[in-house]
Amino acid sequence: MIFTSKVNEILDPGYGVRYERHTKRIINTDGTFNVIRKGVGFSSRNIYQDLIKMSWVKFLTINILIIFTLNALFALLYIWIGLDQIEGVAVGTGFYHDFTQAFFFSFQTFTTLGYGRISPTGDLANLVSAIEAMIGFMSFALITGLLYGRFSKPNISLEYSSKMLIAPYRGGKGLMFRIANKRHSVLVNVKANVTLTLTLEEDNTTVRKYYQLKLERDGIQVFPISWTIVHPIDKDSPFNDIEMVNISGSDLEIMIQIQVFDETFGQIVHSRYSYLSEDIEYGAKFLKSYRTEESGEIILDVRDLHKYEKVNL
Amino acid sequence: MIFTSKVNEILDPGYGVRYERHTKRIINTDGTFNVIRKGVGFSSRNIYQDLIKMSWVKFLTINILIIFTLNALFALLYIWIGLDQIEGVAVGTGFYHDFTQAFFFSFQTFTTLGYGRISPTGDLANLVSAIEAMIGFMSFALITGLLYGRFSKPNISLEYSSKMLIAPYRGGKGLMFRIANKRHSVLVNVKANVTLTLTLEEDNTTVRKYYQLKLERDGIQVFPISWTIVHPIDKDSPFNDIEMVNISGSDLEIMIQIQVFDETFGQIVHSRYSYLSEDIEYGAKFLKSYRTEESGEIILDVRDLHKYEKVNL
Amino acid sequence: MIFTSKVNEILDPGYGVRYERHTKRIINTDGTFNVIRKGVGFSSRNIYQDLIKMSWVKFLTINILIIFTLNALFALLYIWIGLDQIEGVAVGTGFYHDFTQAFFFSFQTFTTLGYGRISPTGDLANLVSAIEAMIGFMSFALITGLLYGRFSKPNISLEYSSKMLIAPYRGGKGLMFRIANKRHSVLVNVKANVTLTLTLEEDNTTVRKYYQLKLERDGIQVFPISWTIVHPIDKDSPFNDIEMVNISGSDLEIMIQIQVFDETFGQIVHSRYSYLSEDIEYGAKFLKSYRTEESGEIILDVRDLHKYEKVNL
Amino acid sequence: MIFTSKVNEILDPGYGVRYERHTKRIINTDGTFNVIRKGVGFSSRNIYQDLIKMSWVKFLTINILIIFTLNALFALLYIWIGLDQIEGVAVGTGFYHDFTQAFFFSFQTFTTLGYGRISPTGDLANLVSAIEAMIGFMSFALITGLLYGRFSKPNISLEYSSKMLIAPYRGGKGLMFRIANKRHSVLVNVKANVTLTLTLEEDNTTVRKYYQLKLERDGIQVFPISWTIVHPIDKDSPFNDIEMVNISGSDLEIMIQIQVFDETFGQIVHSRYSYLSEDIEYGAKFLKSYRTEESGEIILDVRDLHKYEKVNL
Repeated sequence: MIFTSKVNEILDPGYGVRYERHTKRIINTDGTFNVIRKGVGFSSRNIYQDLIKMSWVKFLTINILIIFTLNALFALLYIWIGLDQIEGVAVGTGFYHDFTQAFFFSFQTFTTLGYGRISPTGDLANLVSAIEAMIGFMSFALITGLLYGRFSKPNISLEYSSKMLIAPYRGGKGLMFRIANKRHSVLVNVKANVTLTLTLEEDNTTVRKYYQLKLERDGIQVFPISWTIVHPIDKDSPFNDIEMVNISGSDLEIMIQIQVFDETFGQIVHSRYSYLSEDIEYGAKFLKSYRTEESGEIILDVRDLHKYEKVNL
Repeated sequence: MIFTSKVNEILDPGYGVRYERHTKRIINTDGTFNVIRKGVGFSSRNIYQDLIKMSWVKFLTINILIIFTLNALFALLYIWIGLDQIEGVAVGTGFYHDFTQAFFFSFQTFTTLGYGRISPTGDLANLVSAIEAMIGFMSFALITGLLYGRFSKPNISLEYSSKMLIAPYRGGKGLMFRIANKRHSVLVNVKANVTLTLTLEEDNTTVRKYYQLKLERDGIQVFPISWTIVHPIDKDSPFNDIEMVNISGSDLEIMIQIQVFDETFGQIVHSRYSYLSEDIEYGAKFLKSYRTEESGEIILDVRDLHKYEKVNL
Repeated sequence: MIFTSKVNEILDPGYGVRYERHTKRIINTDGTFNVIRKGVGFSSRNIYQDLIKMSWVKFLTINILIIFTLNALFALLYIWIGLDQIEGVAVGTGFYHDFTQAFFFSFQTFTTLGYGRISPTGDLANLVSAIEAMIGFMSFALITGLLYGRFSKPNISLEYSSKMLIAPYRGGKGLMFRIANKRHSVLVNVKANVTLTLTLEEDNTTVRKYYQLKLERDGIQVFPISWTIVHPIDKDSPFNDIEMVNISGSDLEIMIQIQVFDETFGQIVHSRYSYLSEDIEYGAKFLKSYRTEESGEIILDVRDLHKYEKVNL
Repeated sequence: MIFTSKVNEILDPGYGVRYERHTKRIINTDGTFNVIRKGVGFSSRNIYQDLIKMSWVKFLTINILIIFTLNALFALLYIWIGLDQIEGVAVGTGFYHDFTQAFFFSFQTFTTLGYGRISPTGDLANLVSAIEAMIGFMSFALITGLLYGRFSKPNISLEYSSKMLIAPYRGGKGLMFRIANKRHSVLVNVKANVTLTLTLEEDNTTVRKYYQLKLERDGIQVFPISWTIVHPIDKDSPFNDIEMVNISGSDLEIMIQIQVFDETFGQIVHSRYSYLSEDIEYGAKFLKSYRTEESGEIILDVRDLHKYEKVNL
């Protein structure tokens, strides 16, 4: 399948155009890019971003390790100062017993519990415990901030129809897919961007071509039910004069980016998805994804988003 | 009332077009959509959004239940470890007494109160109380974060004129309504979007048609007093050549979405409202909603936003 | 001064057009609007906005009053439960002494201090103190959140040239003013909006007319030094064919709104200002507000923003 | 090198046009502006911005100084009230000993540790310690908020190709540079703005001219690999009919501003950079910065962004 049309071709779409061999799909089904970044020094990393994006298991393990290590260091510091500066501790019963007592005193200080059964009496122990309480308070507050930041990080849960259809559209044909919001939150200022990419073999190199697919509408105010995004297959479309047999064999990828403003988060959020040639159904149209109750309420069943029936084109 | 005009018709407005029966209004008077979402698995829910959007009663009940359950579990853990590891607790006076003592010790630890009358002496009790204090601190901080998130969540309080008027406008007619900010905050970059929907009966199905209503201006910088939004009834308007008698009988719905930037919240906020046919007054014009004090100050009485007088068209 | 031009007239600018008497300026010199809002019920208020916008004195007074009242109520509750349920309190020494002891115990609980010299022994006192510690922790965290919200609320500190000049501009004349950022933060995506308003006496009413003043450029990417905003006085300008003698007598007001993105706050911020007729200088041009050090550094002295010299037009 | 073209000249770009002598580059290599601001009073400063932008060393020093000073003041207050109001303190052992004891009691109160070995008994000491615990809690929470605000402040880490190239472009020539994201975060809605500035000597003054350079595309949706920004050298370009010999001698500066939306931060972030004449390579083209693994994954090595080869124009 070679498109002769130059209309809407994008020269540098930010994904690269010449490859020594065939690549995997560019956008994975979970919306991430299939690109690995190298040669980036540690200095350009952002610790906050790393802590927000890492897995929960990794995040919690790191935090617990830091807290226990800090408390163990403070325990050693109290032992070095001398446990005789701390009231309520039995002294001279061996290192293990000294350490556990100092460790628990440290924890009671770090968490600002301060039961008081064990308490500092010497000046140095007093000073260290004051500093430890400060560090403890701030550590917990920072960790809670990160917990909350991870927890409240905006994301979006869109359902994409499992297939793209080539369906009848205004007397001609159109390439269509549809989306629905899986959550109860209201999404406004919705914008869609659809790019087609496919590879050609040229002089032993794999060349990727990119085409911006023109849409019937690039945006919609709100879609409480669902939104069908349509690329009209007109004479400027790269899909013009293409038979289904050509599409099914090719390694095209249709990359989608949806931008919305989520009212609950009060932020702009993006969703990405891509369809491959096997996800395109030639000669089909979508069925209704909603129905009306007798009470007059409109019911959207998100599972019905994928339903379509075959039609002749 | 059947509009013949195809101008500004929207094919897929995100609300659905074919229904098996008559539906309720699409936008309720409180701005929510009359749509129920089904077939959405638990995995696509966002706990943060749920916690931010649920009612205060539900939110507080859930939090109190979680805190009391956690403390009861810790109390059972201390009993299992052995209350002899905790100083200041009377042992062997029955489960109820053991439990209440352990429960209150747990609470003094969870809140990082640590009075110290009761305090851990054994290693295991010490370790568990340290962990409980950490969990307690973070729980309260997370709950407070959510409390604050709910409390500071941007919203908007617009007053819409109770009626839409068909009023004289630039030698012809215009469909008008007006809005005012009920708060002292400054709203800037105001944008309005007005969509007409009405239903037709076609082959035993209820078909919804949607029309984008063109506005004299879609936006305004600021409106310290009030803003009158006008749809000029010209030859492209679906309201062209319509008599009031047709409007009052129909089930049209005029859906409004207003977008503003609230300077106090520093965020974009949306407001939705809709007018039905009985809310439209044919042949009327708005009266002034503001007056001037002798001191030169301008007084806006938001209740006067609804005032109009009948005129001949 | 009556403008015959209808070009760029704004019909409803959101400020009102017909007044029974002369009004004060619409935008005060501190950027607030000269409008008082009435007829707004309590239910439409937003407590968060009120707490963020009130003065520091009011904010702190309210918080201290709430904390002291809460603690006094808890003190009365402990007395009602019976001070014999609290260890370390001398009982039966009169109400004043009971109250102060209960009040300080309450404070040690509310702040999660928990010295432990006074501590609850009875079940009910234990339960109440646990609940009080929870309420206390959350109160302080909420108050701190508000403190931080007030403290970190984005604002902007623009210097406006004290005068607007009618200066030579591209062979003709232009109405100009200039702005500079008084802070070290970087302001990007700067947009300006300039509206002229003036009042006419018509049939015993004061009619306000509004004109959008076209600008040479409505926006600029960044302005590390200063930005001169120019309204070219061409044939479409309401200032066309106006002599200075007319301007100085009139009660015109030129209302400015500047929108910027502040990189430190990461937010869009707005600034408003207005010039009256006495602030307009006919036949003058701005002098440079910056100079270069021998080291090659550019020095901007914000006080030089106001400097201009008289020229013949 | 004097450009005769007036196309795309910017009259006031916010950087100043007339200087008494030669200036340094306007945008430093770290993206800051080479401008010093004077004549700005203290009142227009924003303490929050200062605290967010200052160095970590300065920030921590200020905070530690404030905490220690506050505690020292409270210690003096307790001594003034009388240490006999505080249980567990040895009285009458000299000022140094009194002060350290009061200081440590103060710290145990400020951090809400409240071990209880030392605790207030008198009414005034009780009241002061209650107030101190409140101030302490809020201080730590505020400092933590600032810590978190500094830590989570959005920034961007773009790699700019070390050279700008004048390369073959669509049968003619183009001025090109390219950028890549050094982080794993996804950057969307990328916009580029490129301005050329150069100085002329006119009547003993240094005049700066500014030209907006038209780009092949001003924006791109995403660039998981890299984005090459191209200014086509056509007849409207200030670089038309320029030989390399002219460029290398001149003191031109090409100022870049890139705006992106960072999905992890959920915010718009800006990056600035500038190229001088010695950074421009005449007759060269960029080499590929990515390669494909056998597994089909695309590898971007950010260090390869700078690679180019010489070509004849």
